[in-house]
Amino acid sequence: MSKTEIRALTFDVFGTVVDWRNSIAREVTTSPPLKELKIDGFKFADAWRALYQPSMEKVRQGDIGWVNLDALHRINLNHLIDEFNLETLQERDLVHLNKVWHRLDPWPDSVAGMHRLKTNFILASLSNGNVSLILNMARRAGIPWDMILGAEIAGHYKPEPEAYRKSVELLGLAPSQAMMVAAHNGDLVAASDVGLRTAFIRRPKEYGPKQTMDIEPEHSFDFVADDLLDLAEQLDC
Amino acid sequence: MSKTEIRALTFDVFGTVVDWRNSIAREVTTSPPLKELKIDGFKFADAWRALYQPSMEKVRQGDIGWVNLDALHRINLNHLIDEFNLETLQERDLVHLNKVWHRLDPWPDSVAGMHRLKTNFILASLSNGNVSLILNMARRAGIPWDMILGAEIAGHYKPEPEAYRKSVELLGLAPSQAMMVAAHNGDLVAASDVGLRTAFIRRPKEYGPKQTMDIEPEHSFDFVADDLLDLAEQLDC
Repeated sequence: MSKTEIRALTFDVFGTVVDWRNSIAREVTTSPPLKELKIDGFKFADAWRALYQPSMEKVRQGDIGWVNLDALHRINLNHLIDEFNLETLQERDLVHLNKVWHRLDPWPDSVAGMHRLKTNFILASLSNGNVSLILNMARRAGIPWDMILGAEIAGHYKPEPEAYRKSVELLGLAPSQAMMVAAHNGDLVAASDVGLRTAFIRRPKEYGPKQTMDIEPEHSFDFVADDLLDLAEQLDC
Repeated sequence: MSKTEIRALTFDVFGTVVDWRNSIAREVTTSPPLKELKIDGFKFADAWRALYQPSMEKVRQGDIGWVNLDALHRINLNHLIDEFNLETLQERDLVHLNKVWHRLDPWPDSVAGMHRLKTNFILASLSNGNVSLILNMARRAGIPWDMILGAEIAGHYKPEPEAYRKSVELLGLAPSQAMMVAAHNGDLVAASDVGLRTAFIRRPKEYGPKQTMDIEPEHSFDFVADDLLDLAEQLDC
């Protein structure tokens, strides 16, 4: 594969660009009024994230019509109210908490790595996060997207092939001119099935110190990098 | 109207942010192989642009299914081959010429004005140009979009209300939290009908020295500015 054929990098966001687990744990343990509840921040983040795939699966299977990720996060948050004793929170607090996904912090290498990558490649998000979530996150954290793509624009959640196909089409590129950048084997396999190039980024602590999945690439991807600065180096940026 | 309620500025692009007429005239008169044909650059630019609204109208009326602006530009270019003696051009030259719309230059104030506006507002394109056109233009010219929206994302060409409504929805905003920025009265009236705020930018030479339309605002818009630096000033950026 020639590096020079690649025109755009399409990024998974949760776990690949931003550190959702530490960001959520920090906010619920340090920001009022949540910090008064003395929640186990990591347990809460893990429980919320555990509902993520099952909730999208209902949309993928057609059990419910299209709803964006903000809406799914809120449905899932409502399921945690009992377990984490959130009953004392007011509605406006829950609305604010639900938008913690718009306030996730990047991994330490992400912004610097992406600025380097942007000199040679179009940078587009290809996330299951909705447009306003990715947009608000980018403005807060300084993530230099050229374009926000992904599930809400395509009307399909990854790993459905339409999510990748529609994104590449909007970029005006052939699939082989785009490379999916992700910390998850399944995402890259699905992108590869549509014809995209693939770069696996090691994020071995995305799910905390006891992570067992996606520690290493399990397939033959085009690039494997320790972080986004390493990817920039490998791509001569 | 409170300035502080506005969260996003949605921009018309052709004529408002970039100077299509001078850009196209310059390219066809200075770049090989077109310059050998000694075309009247302004006459060519005007003739191509004159086919723009009629071609979109066929999509709006449902006479033809959805096609993006690159495709409409190419259909329209084919109609100019006889008039401008383009028969000697090869297919690859026509493909390159059709993408001159991806290579338009901004007005002198645009990039500096938008950098100032970006400090306080989300900046989104809301153009009839397709995503890759606006994206390639932005990377070449340094236009700092937060997000590319508009006709291709909405599946409707302006001034259809769905183009504005879908864009605001994707930003996660109420219409009154977004302001349409455009040099064209009709665009702003259509945006206002959907509930957006409006800012008229004076571009009295967009269509050349003999321009007669859109010289001045013809309705009561929220802001009227001489250029994007003036708009930044008025919005305290």
